[in-house]
Amino acid sequence: MTQQYSLAQGREYLAIPGPSVMPDAVLQAMHRPSPNIYDGALVEMMPGLTRDLKRVARTEHHVAIYIANGHGTWEAALSNVIAPGETVLAPASGRFTHGWAEMAEGIGAKVSLLDFGMSSTWDLDRIAEALRADTTHQIKAVLAVHVDTSSSIRNDIPALRAVLDDLNHPALLMADCIASLGCDRFEMDAWGVDVMVTASQKGLMTPAGVGFVFFNDKAQAKRAEMPRVSQYWDWQPRVTPEMFYQYFNGTAPTHHLYGLRAALDLIHAEGIEAIWARHARLAKAIWTACEIWAQGDALQLNVADRAHRSHAVTALRLTDGRGTPLRRFTETQLGLTLGIGLGMEDQDGCFRLGHMGHVNAQMVMAMLGGMETAMAALSIPRGSGALEAAAAVLADQIQG
Amino acid sequence: MTQQYSLAQGREYLAIPGPSVMPDAVLQAMHRPSPNIYDGALVEMMPGLTRDLKRVARTEHHVAIYIANGHGTWEAALSNVIAPGETVLAPASGRFTHGWAEMAEGIGAKVSLLDFGMSSTWDLDRIAEALRADTTHQIKAVLAVHVDTSSSIRNDIPALRAVLDDLNHPALLMADCIASLGCDRFEMDAWGVDVMVTASQKGLMTPAGVGFVFFNDKAQAKRAEMPRVSQYWDWQPRVTPEMFYQYFNGTAPTHHLYGLRAALDLIHAEGIEAIWARHARLAKAIWTACEIWAQGDALQLNVADRAHRSHAVTALRLTDGRGTPLRRFTETQLGLTLGIGLGMEDQDGCFRLGHMGHVNAQMVMAMLGGMETAMAALSIPRGSGALEAAAAVLADQIQG
Amino acid sequence: MTQQYSLAQGREYLAIPGPSVMPDAVLQAMHRPSPNIYDGALVEMMPGLTRDLKRVARTEHHVAIYIANGHGTWEAALSNVIAPGETVLAPASGRFTHGWAEMAEGIGAKVSLLDFGMSSTWDLDRIAEALRADTTHQIKAVLAVHVDTSSSIRNDIPALRAVLDDLNHPALLMADCIASLGCDRFEMDAWGVDVMVTASQKGLMTPAGVGFVFFNDKAQAKRAEMPRVSQYWDWQPRVTPEMFYQYFNGTAPTHHLYGLRAALDLIHAEGIEAIWARHARLAKAIWTACEIWAQGDALQLNVADRAHRSHAVTALRLTDGRGTPLRRFTETQLGLTLGIGLGMEDQDGCFRLGHMGHVNAQMVMAMLGGMETAMAALSIPRGSGALEAAAAVLADQIQG
Amino acid sequence: MTQQYSLAQGREYLAIPGPSVMPDAVLQAMHRPSPNIYDGALVEMMPGLTRDLKRVARTEHHVAIYIANGHGTWEAALSNVIAPGETVLAPASGRFTHGWAEMAEGIGAKVSLLDFGMSSTWDLDRIAEALRADTTHQIKAVLAVHVDTSSSIRNDIPALRAVLDDLNHPALLMADCIASLGCDRFEMDAWGVDVMVTASQKGLMTPAGVGFVFFNDKAQAKRAEMPRVSQYWDWQPRVTPEMFYQYFNGTAPTHHLYGLRAALDLIHAEGIEAIWARHARLAKAIWTACEIWAQGDALQLNVADRAHRSHAVTALRLTDGRGTPLRRFTETQLGLTLGIGLGMEDQDGCFRLGHMGHVNAQMVMAMLGGMETAMAALSIPRGSGALEAAAAVLADQIQG
Repeated sequence: MTQQYSLAQGREYLAIPGPSVMPDAVLQAMHRPSPNIYDGALVEMMPGLTRDLKRVARTEHHVAIYIANGHGTWEAALSNVIAPGETVLAPASGRFTHGWAEMAEGIGAKVSLLDFGMSSTWDLDRIAEALRADTTHQIKAVLAVHVDTSSSIRNDIPALRAVLDDLNHPALLMADCIASLGCDRFEMDAWGVDVMVTASQKGLMTPAGVGFVFFNDKAQAKRAEMPRVSQYWDWQPRVTPEMFYQYFNGTAPTHHLYGLRAALDLIHAEGIEAIWARHARLAKAIWTACEIWAQGDALQLNVADRAHRSHAVTALRLTDGRGTPLRRFTETQLGLTLGIGLGMEDQDGCFRLGHMGHVNAQMVMAMLGGMETAMAALSIPRGSGALEAAAAVLADQIQG
Repeated sequence: MTQQYSLAQGREYLAIPGPSVMPDAVLQAMHRPSPNIYDGALVEMMPGLTRDLKRVARTEHHVAIYIANGHGTWEAALSNVIAPGETVLAPASGRFTHGWAEMAEGIGAKVSLLDFGMSSTWDLDRIAEALRADTTHQIKAVLAVHVDTSSSIRNDIPALRAVLDDLNHPALLMADCIASLGCDRFEMDAWGVDVMVTASQKGLMTPAGVGFVFFNDKAQAKRAEMPRVSQYWDWQPRVTPEMFYQYFNGTAPTHHLYGLRAALDLIHAEGIEAIWARHARLAKAIWTACEIWAQGDALQLNVADRAHRSHAVTALRLTDGRGTPLRRFTETQLGLTLGIGLGMEDQDGCFRLGHMGHVNAQMVMAMLGGMETAMAALSIPRGSGALEAAAAVLADQIQG
Repeated sequence: MTQQYSLAQGREYLAIPGPSVMPDAVLQAMHRPSPNIYDGALVEMMPGLTRDLKRVARTEHHVAIYIANGHGTWEAALSNVIAPGETVLAPASGRFTHGWAEMAEGIGAKVSLLDFGMSSTWDLDRIAEALRADTTHQIKAVLAVHVDTSSSIRNDIPALRAVLDDLNHPALLMADCIASLGCDRFEMDAWGVDVMVTASQKGLMTPAGVGFVFFNDKAQAKRAEMPRVSQYWDWQPRVTPEMFYQYFNGTAPTHHLYGLRAALDLIHAEGIEAIWARHARLAKAIWTACEIWAQGDALQLNVADRAHRSHAVTALRLTDGRGTPLRRFTETQLGLTLGIGLGMEDQDGCFRLGHMGHVNAQMVMAMLGGMETAMAALSIPRGSGALEAAAAVLADQIQG
Repeated sequence: MTQQYSLAQGREYLAIPGPSVMPDAVLQAMHRPSPNIYDGALVEMMPGLTRDLKRVARTEHHVAIYIANGHGTWEAALSNVIAPGETVLAPASGRFTHGWAEMAEGIGAKVSLLDFGMSSTWDLDRIAEALRADTTHQIKAVLAVHVDTSSSIRNDIPALRAVLDDLNHPALLMADCIASLGCDRFEMDAWGVDVMVTASQKGLMTPAGVGFVFFNDKAQAKRAEMPRVSQYWDWQPRVTPEMFYQYFNGTAPTHHLYGLRAALDLIHAEGIEAIWARHARLAKAIWTACEIWAQGDALQLNVADRAHRSHAVTALRLTDGRGTPLRRFTETQLGLTLGIGLGMEDQDGCFRLGHMGHVNAQMVMAMLGGMETAMAALSIPRGSGALEAAAAVLADQIQG
């Protein structure tokens, strides 16, 4: 008998690694008339907004807000500290370091790329080697992707900082926290990060369209030496505006600011430590299920070592290449949308789970339950007991 | 170690037996300025709206829309066909028949109650007996709750119709489809139902606040004989309005009408047969899980026979009385809100799952995954493999 | 040359006497998921909600909330205090008193109607005469419409109270404040009103669908003597609920409650005295313009005496009968929707301006500017300088 | 007596020259969950979106969408066609040409500025002179602001095109239509514009945050010769994307795209010619009122000649410097927010009226009525009869 109906009619669950699920409070806050952009409530909101953004990033330094996506913040950050002809070191453990490196080339930088493949974290020895070899300090910055959304690898930023410090190398440590901020522990100042970029649509739970560049005084000193920084990317007036429009080099992203305000309220109400703990526990439940399924030799977690896995995204692979059919099944039959594989050779075998931001235990069980259902429907071999094991992890948390 | 954080921060899932999960399209449609209520788009919307409501109920007769909740439609329906002193027969298999019967007493009717308890469907023989004994046809109507939201029993309306027909008893067959319309198969005309009441907030996926009374010409004939019907409850002008306000005896429920229009669009896009099939399959998955859990002798399904279970709500019981702790756990720790027990002696042991309206497979797995998690956290004995078995039911559907 | 385009494309302004313009905060608050109706935030909201409703009505007594429109509250209020066969006195100065009286007949009451036409306030002498003649106190209640939305007459409730007191007549004083609450000064307790009905969609700035019956202990004493009150209309459990659902005799109007909460927040932030003053001043500006236009002998204000005019609605008449063309013009060409005439003999000549609730000075100038434009387009004779005179009234307020 | 209350409580009217009033349909469309960004409805929406954007701009060439504000599109456009060291000609008739010129300097261009002050349109003879003197064609582009939002001057783009053509000068004609697109007539292809930039928040009626660069093949040829274009600003992949994310160089501005779709639907439903005619007529009404007020010698229109005035924004000046008090009055007392003066020497005397996008006749009367009220309250000398004269202009339209 042919299928006559779908079980997908209902609330759709978008479980991709960004954009994430937007909280109702954020969407409500954005559903409002355009505000006055010269004075009044919106203008007065800004000091608190930047203060609270910096709290999330654990920094006491500066944050520039850009109307731009994450890629835009890559270019923004680079444009302020890397002049044409200067060199950046790019240790890649996923697709996005390559993307950032290409962006650097786009502004005229030379890129020294260390490619650790799609499934491995940084090899710090090789990074140290490259820095050590740079005796004349041509390398002006290291482009460090904290969590790579494509591979779901989480790199060890403090360890990289230690390498730089040990070698006394003056290169700026620039971190991409687009997929980690508000999900995985990140402490900009304590970790010695000089520049950090992120965007609104993942852990910050606000629709895509606004990005952020955080930077400290060391980075600002490099900025001061730049021969020229284009006006739109210049972070200087954005962090010391005399007039409201200078925060944004022109018209403010009015509605996004209201959404962001609501998201920051949610974040600080829960507490950033509690948020990190929640993401860690939810990730552990997901890994537990996936590791059991993987016993069937058809499903693989892209990152073998739990210590190097993101708490916000999990890259998976079906060795028989049926990742795309599985995603289509969950989307059209169950109401669950999973993320495509990105940057992998076996693109159609790969897929990703997003579990970032506004995500709780019942959502994780929906995601895992959807995967179990899809693997059953597609007769994918898998270990049994995965869902109950995941539930046990979630249950344990509370009684902890 | 004490708990430091919650896994509930994220999208809340309200899985109670009404109000149900509101579709985004419905909420969007209601977020709009007040419309002109004298002419224009809203006024012109009405013929299509009543037509589409009747399609959902499978009737070609009449529908009166009331600004009222479900209880209000009980009183509305009774007020049009039952005069003070007249008798109604109320076969109860759950709390809500009692409620309707009390409403009948409130308007001066005599009630002949047949109580089949909280876990059994109607005993048609006893109903037949009561009708047979009514040789002078004092019984003017039978109050037939199709699905009782408290017990989750689904009664057999066509069989009741057959009893009336066999006895040639002229009593009106009045059905309460508040918890079943748009979820369980219901065919007003084919099943010989004379009056049917329902409300917006369950299968019709629209916020609470609007109710509906459907009726056929036989019911209208009884209406015509009534000594007096109060103006607000009178269905007559509501189904033959000369002016827009007569649809509602006064100001229209403007925003609800827009929401309802959006909900009906969703319903007819999916198709009512597909909706019934979806609810049936989702219910089967839920039952499968619950029946496995029940092997642990701690959890019980309130209705033993699948044939008498609602496809939209499932009443459960923890024999150790920990229903309330379980609900508190899922709500505060997982982001999943389950329904309280209603009308049961062991109120705190009971709880209910709502799976009505805008509900799909991933939501069902969230609900079941949340229950498994909660039972694990509370160390409630239960059979194992429930979640995988439920997933198998959902998977099977598609390949069916 | 034929018209090729419209000047109406833009924000529509609905300036009818209810539903009024909904504040963004109210609509935002309603755009949310269905809440838990058994416990949590919504349940806990209720005591504050009833307290704040009573503050608006200036009463310390009781308020019952109904899922119903204003007509529903008429029936609700009557059902609690008037038994079939009892008599009510209905002094009419507009269409709506007749409506309420018909509602009373619908529940079996006898109505003693005093009709003062569509343009005159009550003749208190005639009311006194009727009450004085009722030596056996057959009249159980006086149905007193404070502001009649059709005629825009504002009646003098304290004066009516004085008549009752002078005659020592025990009839309940029942007030309809549907078109006045939150607009015109009204003080339930100080004015000696026993029962007051109102609805959400005018001065309370919340979409139509919820109504309110306020009552004091004298009314409650009459309630206690009633032979029977239907359950849905019974106000008793609604004001002394043991469980949340008893507030509403069934499922709560979930989304309306959130909207109402937001509206009450706006009301109390502004202050009810400030709200009354604002409405009074805006009304004065409108009257000033209309009185100047009226010098052209084509436009008439329905109520001659400013002392008897509502501050929330203004009924007007074009003696040449072109009220309907004027309304069509403002709606289709200017983006301004005016209210139709109601209950007048020359229906097509009449129209009404709504200026209730969420209305400010710029909106009043839009309304008056739209009228001036329409009268110019239709070549309706009128006095000149109306708009500037209205602006002067608005300007004076601030410096006053 | 001191003021006790405000007449501003009600719907706020933001009448500034951008962001403009957002239509409800746009805000509704944006209030939705994050969509799948890999395939499905959003991805499929793109071809229609770019097609309809091009219809608004009257071009058959290319449009690149940027997550950026208007300033961002200045930099984007320049980055694609002007290499460091190349020269642009910037004929300024308002503040914004200076801003664009500074942006050009920021990317390393040389700027040849012709400053025509804040109240005059271009002097085409002087532009021709500058171009004629450029015998070696060092000038690669002319930065032509169509409507300058600060001065409200509307420049004559076709006349400038004719100058270039007459001189056979190969410089690109780059137009800034941020304040004019969707308001004033603009025909990119017919007028021979090579590059045009605009943004979402004015005539396109969508919240700020998205900008657009339109270009033709001549511009693309210059792009092909560029030594380097930064990745984020590169328009090439944005107009020939193989994958969805290439439209935006990264994550899409998901919610803005839905809003923009709704706005374009409104635009095409009305028709661009009708939109231009509406703006022209509304502007004429505004000018008429202002010119009458100006007879009092206190208020001045910044642009003397109607032929050079924008139909979307009107810059005004109070010679006594009380522009700021007037604005404060309308905002806090009337609910009407006017725009501040920008770029003027007597900043506090100046203010601007925005009348762009979603604006109709009743809104214009609100704006003018608010100004009359404020001038009355502040005792500003002014001619009389302004409002009636404006109404006559609006009335005439329809009968015209």
